[in-house]
Amino acid sequence: MRPDDRHPRRPPPADVTVLALDIGGTKLAAGVVTGDGRVLSREVIPSHANEGPWSMIDRLVDLGRRMIDESGVSPSRIAGTGIACGGPLDPETGIILSPPNLPGWDRIPLVDAVTERLGLPAAVENDATAGALAEWWFGAGRSHGVNDLVYLTISTGIGGGLVLDGRLYRGVAGNAGELGHLTVVYDGRPCGCGRRGCLEAYASGTNIARRAREAIAAGEASTLAERPAITSKDVAEQALAGDPLAGRIWDETMAMLGSGVANILDVFNPALVVLGGGVTRSGDQLLVPVREAGLRQAMEPARRSGEVVLTELGPIHDVMSAAVVAFDRLPMPAALEETPA
Amino acid sequence: MRPDDRHPRRPPPADVTVLALDIGGTKLAAGVVTGDGRVLSREVIPSHANEGPWSMIDRLVDLGRRMIDESGVSPSRIAGTGIACGGPLDPETGIILSPPNLPGWDRIPLVDAVTERLGLPAAVENDATAGALAEWWFGAGRSHGVNDLVYLTISTGIGGGLVLDGRLYRGVAGNAGELGHLTVVYDGRPCGCGRRGCLEAYASGTNIARRAREAIAAGEASTLAERPAITSKDVAEQALAGDPLAGRIWDETMAMLGSGVANILDVFNPALVVLGGGVTRSGDQLLVPVREAGLRQAMEPARRSGEVVLTELGPIHDVMSAAVVAFDRLPMPAALEETPA
Repeated sequence: MRPDDRHPRRPPPADVTVLALDIGGTKLAAGVVTGDGRVLSREVIPSHANEGPWSMIDRLVDLGRRMIDESGVSPSRIAGTGIACGGPLDPETGIILSPPNLPGWDRIPLVDAVTERLGLPAAVENDATAGALAEWWFGAGRSHGVNDLVYLTISTGIGGGLVLDGRLYRGVAGNAGELGHLTVVYDGRPCGCGRRGCLEAYASGTNIARRAREAIAAGEASTLAERPAITSKDVAEQALAGDPLAGRIWDETMAMLGSGVANILDVFNPALVVLGGGVTRSGDQLLVPVREAGLRQAMEPARRSGEVVLTELGPIHDVMSAAVVAFDRLPMPAALEETPA
Repeated sequence: MRPDDRHPRRPPPADVTVLALDIGGTKLAAGVVTGDGRVLSREVIPSHANEGPWSMIDRLVDLGRRMIDESGVSPSRIAGTGIACGGPLDPETGIILSPPNLPGWDRIPLVDAVTERLGLPAAVENDATAGALAEWWFGAGRSHGVNDLVYLTISTGIGGGLVLDGRLYRGVAGNAGELGHLTVVYDGRPCGCGRRGCLEAYASGTNIARRAREAIAAGEASTLAERPAITSKDVAEQALAGDPLAGRIWDETMAMLGSGVANILDVFNPALVVLGGGVTRSGDQLLVPVREAGLRQAMEPARRSGEVVLTELGPIHDVMSAAVVAFDRLPMPAALEETPA
């Protein structure tokens, strides 16, 4: 199904129901979601990404079937399947190209595979692009009543999605919004994308933890050295607890995210920058310094008209992002009744 | 006149005629332009920006009147005045806020002033935003047949304009596209915007020249030392002539512009990045390395679907940019006849 040029400004009527599948390198999520954003069922399982794409797809489809059962909705009332997946991918053909966090996935025809297994129409979107739409319709975008929103997800990697002038913006190959690859340090740390100095190379969860491990390996003292496997959550916690190394790495990370947010404000002049992804579970410990640095550094009109907030969708962000892909891209039966005269 | 949510995909019919006024820190330009992009008259005069806004506006309006006379078009057939000006400005109220390259301009009601003096409806737009629209309708965007185009102007400063999904994108306060303030060097050279390490702080014409002067003042030998006042054009020429300092500064500048173009490709995934502004008069000496570095560093889908080219409007870019502001924002008499049924 080809993405339409025009995107509806509102989600479909409340009584539409879709299956939502989210594919990440760490976890798979499935759920049933209604047109007014109620999650009727949801479950998360480990990805076991080392098993490769076909085993993951089979387990996710099985989980999807169970979630339909658990929702109590008749399978004949499920209008379709929305899928959110790490990019790069082609939303038009439904083919996953070769996401860095999904080893072994290389030109996998995901939409065809899911459609065939479930007997339902399906559509896929980059998870950060879908996340922007979910925030717009059901999260921070709705509560702030805005039509221009940039979603920045800070997780294993860093991604972005763009709602501009009341429309989801994908770019000509469906790959716009790669905000993790904004440069912050010229010729800096190598990034998974092949370049150097990208925001992701410093501020993703993976790289926050890696920077701490590197500093410890280089001989710096830290309470983190006692942990068996350092995560970005450990760095955040030990920074709060007063560990100097964790504090320095956290502060540097916040400064770089703040610089990235200032870039986003100057480039898009959005009403809202929404921060989501696992690293933002640190809450105000992340939001307060990033918001302050981002707004302070942005140019005056962008600073005056923009706001920086945390995601309002919380843990259900995964299935909400996947569900809006179906709402946005598939024919919704009840929506057809609402075609304007 | 409030910018409309919807923007026409095509310029108005050929027989519409507008007055075009361009305000820059170095020069003022005026001309009469037709709906099919013919320039019937055009003249450029020095800004004398030190005289302040009101003298500049009076001289520009006088020049505009002369250009109408010179065009041979009856004043009653001029549909309105389009103005391109350095930002920040408010395109809704027509007020110029306080552009760094226009000293003494601070909340100047430019549109009201021009409307009153000429007795014609007028509208103003950030010059880089207007430049993007001009390239889309009449320049590289037209010849490449694209609907997603980012215009990067490398001049006294660095600015940008965005045509996304067949629409001019302004952002919520009319200030989107400040691409000169993308970070390239974390905590790097101070920029006029108050931040550090912006692309503009290295690669604008002003800063290319300044970096050369600083290196010479620091004792580096260069043929540039003989010049009375070094310009970016001098740096480009002496780089070609084999001067090592000029060569190093030019190469560094191209690498930073390449990094900026890669950021633009990854963030917008456009069909076209169009490079304009005075510094691009160096032609292939600029385009070849910037294009190569930008495409090489961008992510695969963006690289595959994007192209980097020079402006196709040449010296008339000033009045073409100003003219499209009128075509886009003012009621065009002949266009009214074309209202779809």
